[in-house]
Amino acid sequence: MSERRTAFFVSDRTGITAEMLGHSLLTQFESLRFQEVTLPFVDSVEKAQEAVRHINERAATDGARPLVISTLVNSEIAQVVSGANALFLDCFEIFISPLEKELGIGASHTVGRSHSANDFVNYHHRIESLNYALSHDDGVSTRDLSESDIILVGVSRCGKTPTCLYLAMQYGVRAANYPLIPEDFSTMQLPGQLRSLRKRLYGLTIRPERLQQIRNERRPGSRYATLSNCEFEVREAEALMQQEGVPVLDVTSKSVEELATTILQEAKLLRRIY
Amino acid sequence: MSERRTAFFVSDRTGITAEMLGHSLLTQFESLRFQEVTLPFVDSVEKAQEAVRHINERAATDGARPLVISTLVNSEIAQVVSGANALFLDCFEIFISPLEKELGIGASHTVGRSHSANDFVNYHHRIESLNYALSHDDGVSTRDLSESDIILVGVSRCGKTPTCLYLAMQYGVRAANYPLIPEDFSTMQLPGQLRSLRKRLYGLTIRPERLQQIRNERRPGSRYATLSNCEFEVREAEALMQQEGVPVLDVTSKSVEELATTILQEAKLLRRIY
Repeated sequence: MSERRTAFFVSDRTGITAEMLGHSLLTQFESLRFQEVTLPFVDSVEKAQEAVRHINERAATDGARPLVISTLVNSEIAQVVSGANALFLDCFEIFISPLEKELGIGASHTVGRSHSANDFVNYHHRIESLNYALSHDDGVSTRDLSESDIILVGVSRCGKTPTCLYLAMQYGVRAANYPLIPEDFSTMQLPGQLRSLRKRLYGLTIRPERLQQIRNERRPGSRYATLSNCEFEVREAEALMQQEGVPVLDVTSKSVEELATTILQEAKLLRRIY
Repeated sequence: MSERRTAFFVSDRTGITAEMLGHSLLTQFESLRFQEVTLPFVDSVEKAQEAVRHINERAATDGARPLVISTLVNSEIAQVVSGANALFLDCFEIFISPLEKELGIGASHTVGRSHSANDFVNYHHRIESLNYALSHDDGVSTRDLSESDIILVGVSRCGKTPTCLYLAMQYGVRAANYPLIPEDFSTMQLPGQLRSLRKRLYGLTIRPERLQQIRNERRPGSRYATLSNCEFEVREAEALMQQEGVPVLDVTSKSVEELATTILQEAKLLRRIY
C-alpha cells in the first residue's frame, strides 16, 4: 500500500546511537525503502511537542505511520514523543526497567552528564590522540614514535590514515602510520626507526585491483596507479611484513570501523575513551 | 553484596552500537561501577560458545551475574549467548518483532552487508571527506574551498580540526577550517578567500579560561597561552564573526560529537554517509 516509510531517530543528545541502531535494524528489511530523519537534542517538552508535529506531518504525507527509534532518557519527554502517530520503540524504556530490577536500584533518568569531569578527560584523550595521529601521519614525523600505542604500516593508499584517525577518535588510541615505499622493498628491510619498535607494528594489505581503483581516483593514469605497479608493491610489502613478523590485516572488504575494532582487539590495545 | 559487575557488549560486527547504547544505559546507575568488556565479531556458533564461557567465568569471579547488551542479528547465535549466566538484553530481538509486525514482512536476519555496493559508496565518501578535511586543515590550502560543504572559522585551538574530522568520518561532510589570527583582527576583515564563501562559514568560539588551559598544554608558558592573550583573541574573533554575520557556536562544554551534530543540523548540511 504505502511506498515509503519515514524512520525517525530521536534523542536528547546527538542521536548517533539511535541512528546506528535504527539504521542497522532497517537494513534487515531489504525490500523496503526508508526515509531516515534524525531529530537530535530533543531535551525539553517543547522540543518533544515539535518532534511530534514533525512525525505526524510525515504520517499524513506518507500515508503510513512512521517508525520512531529513540534513546530518550527523560521519561516525561519520552511520554510526549510516544504520543505521536508512529510505532514508538525506545531503547531506554525497554532496557532500563530490566536493568533496575537486576541491579536492585533505580536509574537516575537524567540526560548525559556532558559537563562531568569524565567528559573533560575523554576530550583531552581524544584531542591528544588526534593530534598524535595527525603529526605522525604518513611518516611525516618519526619523533616520539616510542609514545605510540600502535604503528600501522603498508603501501600508500591502503587505508592507514583513516584507520589511525578512527582509532584516535573512537578509542583515544595513539596511532602513527608509516608508508612502505619502493626503497624499503629494494633493501627488504624495515626503516631503522621502526625496527626497534617492531612489536608495535601492525600491517595493512589490500587486493591490488582495489588499490589500483583507489590510486586511480587520486592520480588518474599515473604509473603509481597501474595494476602492475600495485601488484608489485603489495607483493613486496607482504613479503617484507611476513619476513619481519608483522601481523597483517586485509582491508579490502572492511569498513574503517571494522579495521579499527579488529586492530584494537587483536593488538590488545588499551582504549582511553568510552 | 557484590562490589562490581561486568557488562558485556556483544555483537556480530564491531560492537560500537552495543557499546554506545550500553555505556549510556550504565551511566544511569551512577552509584555503581561496571567493568565494561566488548566482544566484537561474534559471528559463529563457536564464537558464541566462547563468549558464553567468557561471560560465565566473569559471573563466577564477580560473584554476580554480568549484564549482556547485544546487537546479534542471527537468532541462532543470539540463542547461544542468551544461555550464559547473565542478564541478556538484545536490541535486535526486542525490536525486530514489533518492526516485522508493523511492516508486515519478515526480517532477513542476516549479518550486515559489508560487501554491498552501498558500503563502497560510503567508503568512498568517507575517504574523500577525510582527505578534504586533512588538506584543508588550519587554512593550509585555500584551493578548492568552493568544494567545501562548510568552513569552520575561529581562533587557534578552539576545536576546529577534530570537528572537521568528525564531520568527515561520521557524515561524509567536506569540512574545511580556517584559523582567525591577530592579522585578521587588525584589519577587522575576513581573509579575501573567505569573503566570497561567507554563507558557508560557521564560527566556533570558546571561553578564554578553557582556551588558556588547552593552549598551555600545547605550549606551556608562552604568550600565546596567557589568559590575557586568549581573552583578546576570543573577543576580537567574536566581534569579527558577528560583524560578518557568521553563526557562532560555543564549544566550551560540548563534545566533538555534539559540535558536529549541531553544525550538521543548524547549517542544514547534506550527509553522504549513513
